Amino acid sequence: MMASLDLTQVSSSMCFGGFVYKYKHYSTTTDCTMTFNIYLPPSVKVDSETKVPALYFLSGLTCNEDNMITKAGALQYLSDKGIALITPDTSPRGCGIPGEDDSWDLGTGAGFYVDATTDKWSKHYNMYSYISAELPSIISANFPIGGHGAIMIALRNPKMYKSVSAFAPICHPSETPALKNTITEYLGPNKDDWVKYDSTELASNYQGPNINILMDQGSDDSLLKSNTLHPDHFVAAVENSKEYINLQTRVHPGYDHGYYFIQSFIKDHIDFHSTFLLQ
Amino acid sequence: MMASLDLTQVSSSMCFGGFVYKYKHYSTTTDCTMTFNIYLPPSVKVDSETKVPALYFLSGLTCNEDNMITKAGALQYLSDKGIALITPDTSPRGCGIPGEDDSWDLGTGAGFYVDATTDKWSKHYNMYSYISAELPSIISANFPIGGHGAIMIALRNPKMYKSVSAFAPICHPSETPALKNTITEYLGPNKDDWVKYDSTELASNYQGPNINILMDQGSDDSLLKSNTLHPDHFVAAVENSKEYINLQTRVHPGYDHGYYFIQSFIKDHIDFHSTFLLQ
Repeated sequence: MMASLDLTQVSSSMCFGGFVYKYKHYSTTTDCTMTFNIYLPPSVKVDSETKVPALYFLSGLTCNEDNMITKAGALQYLSDKGIALITPDTSPRGCGIPGEDDSWDLGTGAGFYVDATTDKWSKHYNMYSYISAELPSIISANFPIGGHGAIMIALRNPKMYKSVSAFAPICHPSETPALKNTITEYLGPNKDDWVKYDSTELASNYQGPNINILMDQGSDDSLLKSNTLHPDHFVAAVENSKEYINLQTRVHPGYDHGYYFIQSFIKDHIDFHSTFLLQ
Repeated sequence: MMASLDLTQVSSSMCFGGFVYKYKHYSTTTDCTMTFNIYLPPSVKVDSETKVPALYFLSGLTCNEDNMITKAGALQYLSDKGIALITPDTSPRGCGIPGEDDSWDLGTGAGFYVDATTDKWSKHYNMYSYISAELPSIISANFPIGGHGAIMIALRNPKMYKSVSAFAPICHPSETPALKNTITEYLGPNKDDWVKYDSTELASNYQGPNINILMDQGSDDSLLKSNTLHPDHFVAAVENSKEYINLQTRVHPGYDHGYYFIQSFIKDHIDFHSTFLLQ
């Protein structure tokens, strides 16, 4: 892969002694220009021989590569621990697909981390392969990263990630009526094709190796109340696989679905991942 | 003042055990609807009898009321210390003044915390009075805030603020050629009218009472390099008033003008203000 030739640095800003870099590159997986941020802690430079472990943060619906890295207050802790952070975008953008910008839960900002199979979306909307294969290859080839979230991707690639955590994730999309239209658009009408992108279905059938998962949920989250998230389904599914999945879940009274919630608990997530990444 | 009747709560989000509220209200000073955020730490509720001290954070050019409170990572420290935070907008918006949205350094997002005197701007662009008088009155009338930050406003109202700090501020606007057009638009051509909104000129003539000022500056700040900020002028002016002004300045190698810089040092500023607010 000639990835390194394709990376263009958009910006560079020092933060807590390290640097946040924004890069854009042409992605062969999504057949368009993609953008990501990477934070390198002060212990390494772009061309360091020594390597540091990395966290991938996969943002949710409507977000882009900036939301978490600018608003979560995570960099102070990553600086201290010597861990890198990679924040990818959540979908292809500007592909010219009819209706791609018309809805908050389909198209731009709503890639759902699937490889679309329908004619309309399959040329560009391959975020599963972008996040789990192309981007890690680009990161490894260009940055001093030695190790390598989201629950679904981790459960399908168990040797690739040591730990995974999530804030208020969609846990059971194939059984969530509000998401049926989006899933059908990307993957077609056959439900058998949906389950391989469904954390609850994957957890129910997980066979190891052991993986560590932390999940936080606010009680005043409007998407929880509208039955879009279903963390209870995920917890029940893990009962089938508790030999392999070490799951910690926490409900935080009063918190909603936004960045103030994430900021309040990001330190716990970084501590959690540090336990496994810095072993 | 019937301010309390006019406050409309736009949103409410828990963060570090306290709450971030966004409010909008009609301002008699700017003759338009203004928006601000307020963070109340867990030690008080909106209707608490007990009161907490507050920090006012005045954002810079192009910002609105959200930039600092969402990106600076300050709320964890304010939660711990029991200090409130108020983040006002930086200008009136949507007033229909010809050209108000045409330039990044004049009009919307660029109120410069002056009371404009020219016919074109004086009806709405009265951010000095809004920040130093109307908004504090509204806050006092509606929230459990007992005490009451930017350098210029503090130097003109020395009994109102116990401490003031700044990240990469414009220090000497009346002697900054890049700002001459903006200042003339708001205040007219007479230089004598400019100095009362100029931190360096005010510091040079400051007669007390004693005030504590912390100023941080990144060395890779493009506005510093273009001679828009002039912190050296401010430092020289304080030499005339060092009996009354306790000034700490720090230059941080490699940092730029953005939120990653602010995030890196916000804890020091909160610690600094805590020393005076929590006495």
